[in-house]
Amino acid sequence: MATYKIELIVKPKAGVRDPQGEAVDGAVKGLEVKGVKVHQVGRYLSMDVDARSTDEAKRIVDDLCKRLLVNPNLETYTARVEGA
Amino acid sequence: MATYKIELIVKPKAGVRDPQGEAVDGAVKGLEVKGVKVHQVGRYLSMDVDARSTDEAKRIVDDLCKRLLVNPNLETYTARVEGA
Repeated sequence: MATYKIELIVKPKAGVRDPQGEAVDGAVKGLEVKGVKVHQVGRYLSMDVDARSTDEAKRIVDDLCKRLLVNPNLETYTARVEGA
Repeated sequence: MATYKIELIVKPKAGVRDPQGEAVDGAVKGLEVKGVKVHQVGRYLSMDVDARSTDEAKRIVDDLCKRLLVNPNLETYTARVEGA
C-alpha cells in the first residue's frame, strides 16, 4: 500500500458557458492588458490516496469524481498522479 | 510573437485555513471512502498569452496574478506553460 498524491482539475465541458471564465477575462481586459485571453476557470483539488498501484489510485479518484466531485453534465476532469 | 497556453493554479497558502478543502474532505468521509484525504481546494485557470518567449509569458502571468488574480495574503500560485 502506498500513498499517491493526486491533483484533480475540474473544468467546464467544451461548449458549456463559463461565466466565471468570462468574468475573469473581462476583468483582464479592464486592466488594459493586451494579448491575454482567459478561457476557462475551474477547480483544483489536491488529495492523498492510499492504493496498491497508480491504476488503483486513479480508479478511486474516478469513483469519487462520479459520486461527489464532478457534475458530468457540465464538467469534465483530469487527475494527475504525482510522479506517475 | 507566439501564443503560449498557460495553466494557472491558485491555492491556499500553507498554514491558511481552507474551509473548502475541509468541507470536501468531510463529504468524502461521509461517503465512507477510506484512505482518501483531501488537502486543498483551489482555482484553476487556463489562458492564452501572446509573448516573445516562455519567460515573457511567465512575466505577463506573474503581473496579472499580482494585479488581479491572486490574493498574496492568503493564496499562492503556480503557472505551467504548456510544452515548456
